[in-house]
Amino acid sequence: MKKITGGVASPRGFEAASAAAGIKYRDRDDMALLYSSSPCVAAGTFTSNIVKAAPVVWDRNIVETYGTAQAAVINSGIANACTGKEGYDICRKTADEAGKVLHIDPDKVFVASTGVIGMQIDIDRVINGIQILSGKKEHSDKAGSDAASAIMTTDTKRKETAFEFELDGKKAIIGGMCKGSGMIHPNMCTMLAFITTDAAISKEMLQKALRDDVKDSFNMVSVDGDTSTNDTALLLANGLAGNAEITEENADYHSFCLALHEVTSFLARSMAGDGEGATALLEVKVTGAADKAQAVLIAKSVVSSNLVKTAIAGHDANWGRILCAMGYSGAEFDPENVDLFFESAAGRILIFSQGTAAGYSEEEATKILSEPEITVTADIHMGDAGATAWGCDLTHGYININADYRS
Amino acid sequence: MKKITGGVASPRGFEAASAAAGIKYRDRDDMALLYSSSPCVAAGTFTSNIVKAAPVVWDRNIVETYGTAQAAVINSGIANACTGKEGYDICRKTADEAGKVLHIDPDKVFVASTGVIGMQIDIDRVINGIQILSGKKEHSDKAGSDAASAIMTTDTKRKETAFEFELDGKKAIIGGMCKGSGMIHPNMCTMLAFITTDAAISKEMLQKALRDDVKDSFNMVSVDGDTSTNDTALLLANGLAGNAEITEENADYHSFCLALHEVTSFLARSMAGDGEGATALLEVKVTGAADKAQAVLIAKSVVSSNLVKTAIAGHDANWGRILCAMGYSGAEFDPENVDLFFESAAGRILIFSQGTAAGYSEEEATKILSEPEITVTADIHMGDAGATAWGCDLTHGYININADYRS
Repeated sequence: MKKITGGVASPRGFEAASAAAGIKYRDRDDMALLYSSSPCVAAGTFTSNIVKAAPVVWDRNIVETYGTAQAAVINSGIANACTGKEGYDICRKTADEAGKVLHIDPDKVFVASTGVIGMQIDIDRVINGIQILSGKKEHSDKAGSDAASAIMTTDTKRKETAFEFELDGKKAIIGGMCKGSGMIHPNMCTMLAFITTDAAISKEMLQKALRDDVKDSFNMVSVDGDTSTNDTALLLANGLAGNAEITEENADYHSFCLALHEVTSFLARSMAGDGEGATALLEVKVTGAADKAQAVLIAKSVVSSNLVKTAIAGHDANWGRILCAMGYSGAEFDPENVDLFFESAAGRILIFSQGTAAGYSEEEATKILSEPEITVTADIHMGDAGATAWGCDLTHGYININADYRS
Repeated sequence: MKKITGGVASPRGFEAASAAAGIKYRDRDDMALLYSSSPCVAAGTFTSNIVKAAPVVWDRNIVETYGTAQAAVINSGIANACTGKEGYDICRKTADEAGKVLHIDPDKVFVASTGVIGMQIDIDRVINGIQILSGKKEHSDKAGSDAASAIMTTDTKRKETAFEFELDGKKAIIGGMCKGSGMIHPNMCTMLAFITTDAAISKEMLQKALRDDVKDSFNMVSVDGDTSTNDTALLLANGLAGNAEITEENADYHSFCLALHEVTSFLARSMAGDGEGATALLEVKVTGAADKAQAVLIAKSVVSSNLVKTAIAGHDANWGRILCAMGYSGAEFDPENVDLFFESAAGRILIFSQGTAAGYSEEEATKILSEPEITVTADIHMGDAGATAWGCDLTHGYININADYRS
């Protein structure tokens, strides 16, 4: 497996485009198109929030009813959530227009939206946008990057990656992009993620690969504990790599899953590190757990704690808050038998052991916590299981962004 | 029932004092004593965090083993949590010293601490503090107020209240104080709350009254979602009112519970309104619920949402975030059948109904959200149950306080 340039438009047959449709933002691209020259099998995971945006309902229906698709139309600026029947009609009209200009079945067009909840989208702008997108779409790194930029809201960085790997002696490619910076605490998947591959794989295996993977990637990210109404991860496979179709959990399936995880874990980490207002990526590893569920509970509790996140913002080795967040996670463990480590490019130190502070230097701890990527490891000495969660610090930037988001 | 001046030192026989012991703070009182001239039955509820501070372990043992007490020694500045065996020894030595100077059994002395996790307390300073406290204690409003001030950490306001009520033809008094501003998301009770009464009541009834009450008072508060290692609520009753002892759920028991709830709900609201960095008290009422558990889940989810809290800080009627937080609460309801209202001293408006925005004025909404006490009501039209939760807005002040708390 090797990392290559590009993103969603890198696998054979995939094209992308972006357009400035004026949905809500001015003077920037705010619509993206993802298109495959041949039909794809499609997998998806969606928000567990019972308040679901209209596009989530639309896309889930495509995944569950057909499991095939050929395009996705995405807008940023307005989430099309809490918009009633009118909001769902917008999805249908979006897919109809895309189907018409792309000469494909509208029921093979995913629709995705991200932005303010509660506002209605102006369908005329969407239709105009689709016409621009249709004329611009191309199979190139630049087209993929433009799409990854157009779907951003409060994100400060474009998030995309691609890998080449081998299946059945053939070269296959998998690429992905995502957006997500606030209202990030995915419970089925992240805010919006799109992954494309030219691997040949059955829809059952594709859905299984995605469903299993998100538990270790997107579902392990938290920016602010708020599970969005719009969380969507879509995975499209058009089979143009020419490998023998993967239809069971064989060696090729595992190669595919490894490549998928490279993409999703990169995107998940990128999303955490670019959390609203973030100045640091916070990685929390739990090791020595009795089972994985326990490790997940503890890791997510620590990475979600406002008090841990503000301490990281202040480069303050206030490890008591980490123990505290572990303690209210709901997992059982012995606080007297925890080893806690801080680690970054500046070094690694033991900070807490055998029930009390280890003899560490505050100065060294502050230096470690002043790096842009910080890892907290908690070894709970109960077994061999582990889990890793990703989040970020909580800063004045988060307040600035969210105290007046709509204006 | 009528509100009277004073706090914990108001019921007959109760005395209080404060002292500057230099535990961690300089130039302010940081220790408090609560004492009853006659032995009390005692009830307590404690943090559900499995990382429990040493004083929580000490106090819970007193409540469970004896159910009686006569004094409490409290310090602010250092939490005595994650301090191992040495931390527990500090509790024992504190109780021993208080027992000696007050001429009571050390096993009748509660110990409570609040402040930084992980630091050890200097026992010599505690012993010196106890000697000062013992010489100063008195039965007066001022003594109660001084104690309520001494237990504050990042609190900006002293929190105390007292009520007079009638039991069995006799006048009884109940008073309380609490502290709590950050790491507030109590799951058995709040950070530190002390309630005193001269009512005569059995220890079984006292514990039942407290245990039932905290579900509707302290457990409905959230400042930052972090359940502390030190949460403790203690209720002491010395019987000096002279009423016939309450030993069953009769009319007097209900009168007592009503008075207790006046004290605890006042303290809970005060704690929420004085949350770290808060500029507004946020009250979330869920009505029309099928049952209380459902109403509690929804109300606590909304009041705990960082995105709702930052919107309130910005006086921004971003109601989509409220629907979103209701949706991920874990409670089942129909988002299309929710009525959402904003209310404050400036008025009351319907903001969301029948699945979409109601036709409200943004200007009026902003005016309502600019008051220091704001109520959000969500009617979910499923039944007659309801719940109320209290929290506060999330501001730059919270970041300032917590990004460098220990220095």
